[in-house]
Amino acid sequence: MNAHAPADALVLNCTLKPSPATSSTDRLAGLVAAALADRGFASETVRVVDHAVLPGVERDMGEGDAWPGILRAVLAARIVVFATPTWVGQHSSVAQRVIERLDAELSQTDDAGRPSLFDRVAIPVVVGNEDGAHHIIGVLAQTLGDVGFTIPAQSSVYWNGEAMHTTDFVELDAVPEAVASAVTTAASNAAHLADLLRRAPYPNPQAS
Amino acid sequence: MNAHAPADALVLNCTLKPSPATSSTDRLAGLVAAALADRGFASETVRVVDHAVLPGVERDMGEGDAWPGILRAVLAARIVVFATPTWVGQHSSVAQRVIERLDAELSQTDDAGRPSLFDRVAIPVVVGNEDGAHHIIGVLAQTLGDVGFTIPAQSSVYWNGEAMHTTDFVELDAVPEAVASAVTTAASNAAHLADLLRRAPYPNPQAS
Amino acid sequence: MNAHAPADALVLNCTLKPSPATSSTDRLAGLVAAALADRGFASETVRVVDHAVLPGVERDMGEGDAWPGILRAVLAARIVVFATPTWVGQHSSVAQRVIERLDAELSQTDDAGRPSLFDRVAIPVVVGNEDGAHHIIGVLAQTLGDVGFTIPAQSSVYWNGEAMHTTDFVELDAVPEAVASAVTTAASNAAHLADLLRRAPYPNPQAS
Amino acid sequence: MNAHAPADALVLNCTLKPSPATSSTDRLAGLVAAALADRGFASETVRVVDHAVLPGVERDMGEGDAWPGILRAVLAARIVVFATPTWVGQHSSVAQRVIERLDAELSQTDDAGRPSLFDRVAIPVVVGNEDGAHHIIGVLAQTLGDVGFTIPAQSSVYWNGEAMHTTDFVELDAVPEAVASAVTTAASNAAHLADLLRRAPYPNPQAS
Repeated sequence: MNAHAPADALVLNCTLKPSPATSSTDRLAGLVAAALADRGFASETVRVVDHAVLPGVERDMGEGDAWPGILRAVLAARIVVFATPTWVGQHSSVAQRVIERLDAELSQTDDAGRPSLFDRVAIPVVVGNEDGAHHIIGVLAQTLGDVGFTIPAQSSVYWNGEAMHTTDFVELDAVPEAVASAVTTAASNAAHLADLLRRAPYPNPQAS
Repeated sequence: MNAHAPADALVLNCTLKPSPATSSTDRLAGLVAAALADRGFASETVRVVDHAVLPGVERDMGEGDAWPGILRAVLAARIVVFATPTWVGQHSSVAQRVIERLDAELSQTDDAGRPSLFDRVAIPVVVGNEDGAHHIIGVLAQTLGDVGFTIPAQSSVYWNGEAMHTTDFVELDAVPEAVASAVTTAASNAAHLADLLRRAPYPNPQAS
Repeated sequence: MNAHAPADALVLNCTLKPSPATSSTDRLAGLVAAALADRGFASETVRVVDHAVLPGVERDMGEGDAWPGILRAVLAARIVVFATPTWVGQHSSVAQRVIERLDAELSQTDDAGRPSLFDRVAIPVVVGNEDGAHHIIGVLAQTLGDVGFTIPAQSSVYWNGEAMHTTDFVELDAVPEAVASAVTTAASNAAHLADLLRRAPYPNPQAS
Repeated sequence: MNAHAPADALVLNCTLKPSPATSSTDRLAGLVAAALADRGFASETVRVVDHAVLPGVERDMGEGDAWPGILRAVLAARIVVFATPTWVGQHSSVAQRVIERLDAELSQTDDAGRPSLFDRVAIPVVVGNEDGAHHIIGVLAQTLGDVGFTIPAQSSVYWNGEAMHTTDFVELDAVPEAVASAVTTAASNAAHLADLLRRAPYPNPQAS
């Protein structure tokens, strides 16, 4: 990650596997990033587990905390691709750590008195060898919406295999057509909404 | 409900109690409707349990099915206030019935080949004597997002009492300040987003 | 349903489809019922949508309410197989209706002053053409646990296809081996626990 | 933690706050531990965030991984009090980390060929300044049930304040009566069930 070169889109890859292990989450999020690039949104990717994001709910948990650098990248982006694997039907501990750290933004406002994350758009991406995606999409839509993101229509992207199967997305020879279609819809809708909110930001609700 | 007089906003009250019983859900949703009216969005309210919405996942389940009339009101609205009580920590069976019926819209497209519910904005409203709101907001954001609604930033509104308390929202003497603030934010953001999407609808993702 | 001939096990099939339509939920729950029969627990099945279970949270919602008859069957059983389809990632409106009606049992006690549903064991069964099962199993474990059921180890049974697939469980030529194994585990553990609790019921917690 | 002195009960405190900070989770879990002690189950407590539990889904993630020591304590206990705070409506990243590590137990069996965690009983404990408990109880019941724990009747314990309040459980002058009652029920039922399963373990389901 280079926090000094902000991109219009940011992929937060919340896999449990440090680099350079292959990651199904990376593969699926990468498809979304490519579709966003086609629509003018260049992406930067942060593989969160490679960084020491400390437990806590403050903006900066002090010495050794890598979160402030990641937060700068979040605040510099217009679209955040929030990508998590599925473990025992749930979003990863790394994803939950990011959500906890974003919680600190609730008490932050910009120059116009608006929450710091307003006008940003989120795309939930969930991958697993099996079941859990709808639930996790709900968790991400709720938590990211709470802290200030807008969730476009049909913007979630997921893949999981049949019940109790063990194949990973990274092992598939080809991307299933239904996944490719969902990626296109999510990228198209997120790009549209991010453009609208860039040109016409939310007013300060408490001042309107 | 008068499906022939479309309003810009529609409140779907998913209480279990038929009219004319008092309803905490109605009280909280009414606050949102009033805040939307202040921003130019007149509301119509449908108390779903008063109508015979049949089980199933088709647009019209046949004789005696009241859903087609309610669906017309949904399609005529720009903002849908989706309001549900909390029972055993979950959204009501009436709310789930509505979600199941909206599922049929996944296979419907408009003249531009877009999903029938695109450009509509949803406000999740959840009330309970106790705990469950965040979970239900996630369920509503996921299900309504799946069928085509857009979820604005910080657009959910909820109230619940302390753990294992039994006071209902309708019994409160005054609306808590935090609730009033959340109502203002939700209405302001939903009105802003609905206006943006009216003037600049989502393009057909599969054609872009 | 014959409420006068109590069985040791009760299947609550919460499909949205009235009889005699084929039901994937019925097929999967039937496998569990057969495995319970092998362990001495005869089953009765109630297809809830065939009965007029009225909205509300009282034991008896009055004229035309079919719930009191179903409740008698629940109270007569030692094992309840709670089976629901997956719609938009959630348990069905019929399943939620049952949960709402069971909520009334929270204020009911038996002769020993214990909650009316104590010593009963629940098996969550979830089926869908796609994703949602783990979430729904969590919802069922929480809600059924709240009202008094015990949830055995590894007692949930589910099937869903790959992401965004449309095949139903009832269309599969053969039962997948992983499903058959889960059915065996759930039935074995539920039968063991139901026997233990029949011989040694929970004491009244508030009196111990 | 002293992994060499196994207790009959183990409290896993999944707060985000390292020792010696005060912890609402600790206070509520402590009430459960005291009630278990009254019923003959001595407790040991592990504050997980004080230990370097590495990300991953193997039993031992290698150098510096503190999980193997904690796992020994889990396997030595008959009752696990799984206690988590609520952050943005979800279980903590520390709690999810524990769940991910317990996932490795799915492929472990004991001498009788049974899953390694069979016959153990779990008590979900959830605390938050506001809403989220029912949802998290569902998540814990599902995930802990999947890996082999049994969930007793009415065994969950929680506290949260009114919607959008900020008071912490640790700040309450007195324990609310409803919480005390829930603690008693959970401890009584868990102790009863743990005793039953100690005397009559689950048979190997695949061999029965």
